[in-house]
Amino acid sequence: MSSSDASPGRGGREQAATAKPPMRDALVAAAFRLFLERGYEQTTVDDIVALAGVGRRSFFRYFPSKEDVVFPDHERCLADMTAFLSSGTDDDEPVRRVCDAARLVLRMYAENPTFSVQRYRLTRKVPGLRAYELSVVWRYERALAQYLRARFAGRPDGTLRADVVAAAVVAAHNNALRSWLRSDGQGDAGAAVDHALGHVQEAFGRPPAGPPSAPAGQWSGRDEGQDDVVVVVSRRGAPLWRVVQEIESTLGRD
Amino acid sequence: MSSSDASPGRGGREQAATAKPPMRDALVAAAFRLFLERGYEQTTVDDIVALAGVGRRSFFRYFPSKEDVVFPDHERCLADMTAFLSSGTDDDEPVRRVCDAARLVLRMYAENPTFSVQRYRLTRKVPGLRAYELSVVWRYERALAQYLRARFAGRPDGTLRADVVAAAVVAAHNNALRSWLRSDGQGDAGAAVDHALGHVQEAFGRPPAGPPSAPAGQWSGRDEGQDDVVVVVSRRGAPLWRVVQEIESTLGRD
Repeated sequence: MSSSDASPGRGGREQAATAKPPMRDALVAAAFRLFLERGYEQTTVDDIVALAGVGRRSFFRYFPSKEDVVFPDHERCLADMTAFLSSGTDDDEPVRRVCDAARLVLRMYAENPTFSVQRYRLTRKVPGLRAYELSVVWRYERALAQYLRARFAGRPDGTLRADVVAAAVVAAHNNALRSWLRSDGQGDAGAAVDHALGHVQEAFGRPPAGPPSAPAGQWSGRDEGQDDVVVVVSRRGAPLWRVVQEIESTLGRD
Repeated sequence: MSSSDASPGRGGREQAATAKPPMRDALVAAAFRLFLERGYEQTTVDDIVALAGVGRRSFFRYFPSKEDVVFPDHERCLADMTAFLSSGTDDDEPVRRVCDAARLVLRMYAENPTFSVQRYRLTRKVPGLRAYELSVVWRYERALAQYLRARFAGRPDGTLRADVVAAAVVAAHNNALRSWLRSDGQGDAGAAVDHALGHVQEAFGRPPAGPPSAPAGQWSGRDEGQDDVVVVVSRRGAPLWRVVQEIESTLGRD
């Protein structure tokens, strides 16, 4: 399953990257050079600013703490994700939309494989950075869940479903991302993430538009709208949300 | 959906609670009394040991840091969860097994509603405790994922599926748990968690018994064709025998 035209494009990212202040980039570069040479714990903010040739106040203008310099792009990516989600319409299939939003994170990592792999190794070694990363991941998951809660509002178990889908999307994305990072950034990260997110869309999303996944003819009544009769067969124990979801997806409605 | 006989029983927990060292309990009680009176940040370990009438070394014998006294039972619960998962057999349906394992966490919270609600409020207010809690949640999720990875070994996308199901179970459990905590521990937390976990079992678990509902992939391919909700769409003019035939063939019956 590949990312659609509705996915965030790549042009804006390069533009944004170019617009980043050079001093900020210099601080990140200096910090990572020292982290790799001496270790994270053994490197102070004073060491970083000395190597970058700037004062301490310049560092803290860009980064609240030493931990933040390890993850310099997550705030921007979170903002991009929130903007992407809020720019959608009610016609967007919600699960597909959050999968596309998750691809923004992958794109940030894939823009600079060497840096991403270095950071991955560093984060494995330093418990404080691992905790920081967990809090970042949690914020992405919350952003996705909030979007889904709004889209599922009024549906039975809407917030439950939103939370579960958001967690599943993040887990699938991170499963593929981590495999790519462990392989030192070899291979096609985008294809791996698409495959992983496809798994979640299969479990929770509506069948994608376009060529139906079922054999031709099987869904032939779907396009005929008002003339259709819908017959629902459900196991006795099936929850109502599941039945409603199946009807909605069959009718191609949200 | 109710918890089965395979679920961990309640008897052992009460026994374990009784067996906890009284000094440890006294330290937790003193700590929470001070956290509620003065605030978490304003309370020092010295304050806690003074109120509990023990020395600093006693505190650090039980708790590595002030944060740990806020979550005194998670290590035991993680150990219980790991033991429960490893005591299973290959006959256990894997998704059901991890749902039952997650109920161990709920049980820990439900054992002492007042304490759990107080801690929930405290954790909302103190960012450091929120980060601590995220790391604990991550460890539960890893324990579930590791069990599932072993059970799904050799299946296509086994580790991906394991990670996604583990995340979904944790998200569903926590959705119900947080609702209960926000309601000040009113209502039946166990029933709410059962309902939430049922949602995940419906999405990912094997149907309890019976023939597969449809050939793989036929109805949007969700979860390897093991859907238990089948929707048939037919034109209004279609003869009834045709509709019935379609339902029967979909359900794999003659």
